[in-house]
This record gives sequence, C-alpha cells and structure tokens, in this order.
Amino acid sequence: MTLTFPAPSKDKAELETGPAFTPRFDEKGLVTAVVTDARDGELLMVAHMNAEALALTIETGIAHYYSRSRNSLWKKGESSGNTQAVQEIRTDCDQDAIWLKVTVAGHDATCHTGRRSCFYRTVGVENGKARVTITDEHRHFDPAQIYAEKKG
Amino acid sequence: MTLTFPAPSKDKAELETGPAFTPRFDEKGLVTAVVTDARDGELLMVAHMNAEALALTIETGIAHYYSRSRNSLWKKGESSGNTQAVQEIRTDCDQDAIWLKVTVAGHDATCHTGRRSCFYRTVGVENGKARVTITDEHRHFDPAQIYAEKKG
Repeated sequence: MTLTFPAPSKDKAELETGPAFTPRFDEKGLVTAVVTDARDGELLMVAHMNAEALALTIETGIAHYYSRSRNSLWKKGESSGNTQAVQEIRTDCDQDAIWLKVTVAGHDATCHTGRRSCFYRTVGVENGKARVTITDEHRHFDPAQIYAEKKG
Repeated sequence: MTLTFPAPSKDKAELETGPAFTPRFDEKGLVTAVVTDARDGELLMVAHMNAEALALTIETGIAHYYSRSRNSLWKKGESSGNTQAVQEIRTDCDQDAIWLKVTVAGHDATCHTGRRSCFYRTVGVENGKARVTITDEHRHFDPAQIYAEKKG
C-alpha cells in the first residue's frame, strides 16, 4: 500500500471544494461505502472501508472493504468469485462517504444470500407494525454450496 | 411517534428472511441511510437515522434523519425547502442500512452546497496523490441566500 490520505482540513470550504482527497474516517477509522452497479445504477450494498481498504481499492481497481464482524480487510468476492471491478469512485461534500460504481464478476451477485443486491426487501407498516417484504427471491448462487466449497 | 422497532433477532435466518423489520441500530443508536432519486436512481446523499427519525420517516412519508453534527433530529429540507417525499423504503440483509427512494421538492437539490447530489466529485490519483475532481458545478440554489433567509 503506497497511497496515503492526508488529514482532513478543518476549513469547510477546503473540504468541499479543494483538490485533495482527505476522507474523514470516523473514530473507528472507517468511512461508509455505497456500492451501485455501473450498468444500471442499482444499489447493491453498503459497507465500510478503512484507509488500507480504500487505498487498495483505488490502487487495484478491485473493491476492498473492512469487515466489522470479522475485524479484518475484506476483498469482496474472494470466496464467492463475485469480485467488484471499480468503474468510478466518488465522495460526498464532507468526505465521510464513498460511492463505488462497480461491475460485478462471477454470478453477478453481491449479497451473501446469493441475490443480486443486499436490498432485497421493502419496508412497510402492517397493523401498526413495521414489516419487511421480500421482493427478490432469485438466487444467483447457492450460498451453502459456494461458501462450503471455498472453506474446503 | 407510535411506531417502535423490536430488538433484532440473534437468529441470522430470521433477520434475513423473517417478516419483522428490526433495524440493527449501532452503539450510538443509528443506522445508515442511503438516499437515491426515485426518478432516475441517482445517489443523492448518505445520512444516519435514529429510531425516532426512522419512525417519523415511515409514518409521515417525509425523510427525517439524525444530525450527528448537531446531535438532533433533522427534517431534511426544513430550511431550504428541499424536502424528500419517500416513494419506497428498503433494508439490507442484516438490517443495518436503509435505502430511501425519494422525490425531492423545492429546488430539486439535496446537497447543502446547492447541488443536486452530495456526490459531486470523482476520486482519482494524480502524481501518486489521491485527488478529487468536481464534476457538477451547477447550483440549484445559492446556499448563502437560502440559509440566511431562514435564519432571519
């Protein structure tokens, strides 16, 4: 990893309009990453990146994240083959969020459940209770098979 | 606020496929909210919601967030008029992120800089340094005027 990120400016104008990319990592050293499909803009997933994951993503063109559950660097798709080739990287006004437009390899599935997107459910209210409804049941791969194979 | 959210199940299958909406608020009581334009899917902003903001959003159909900088409930667009009418709410596999598809009122601008989207810059590398490039200079409103008016 050779790419490093300078500390964010305290000057709001510099942060919003200056030429330097100075991501505002939170107290855990993470920024939020929003991932959409470069093909049609569909939201695929939301994840987090530390400086190492962000630098690797920029340098290799393949999306890397930081897994908060495993506390480790996470090359997305390493097990399932559904790696993400980054077509464009954007950041927001206060530089604490990253937007990746990606092309998904493998089964064209981003969710570990085998679905194309992690956002396969709508939220609504039913009899005064908040409920979710699955709108995408199509599995691009069988998680039990794919993740078992890679473990072996 | 009448809508409440039960604690998330510890059973992964229940969380991923059960009918209950049980958002996984983090240790600060927040979930990440990704906001896209219902018209064309453009990513407009990333923000955070506490239970109150999420319940108000579901109940009123107008997007509410929790401002981490002001530590308070934030009805988006209250000052600028650029409120967000929610067309659809989605959640992801582990229910720690929310996706709002919205129609923006007012100037059709979501960013406080007056731009349509907060993601008005691409990220790249120039001479070994990470740089940002502004790709959208169009301001839908003049922030100095709009926010000054509302303060007065």
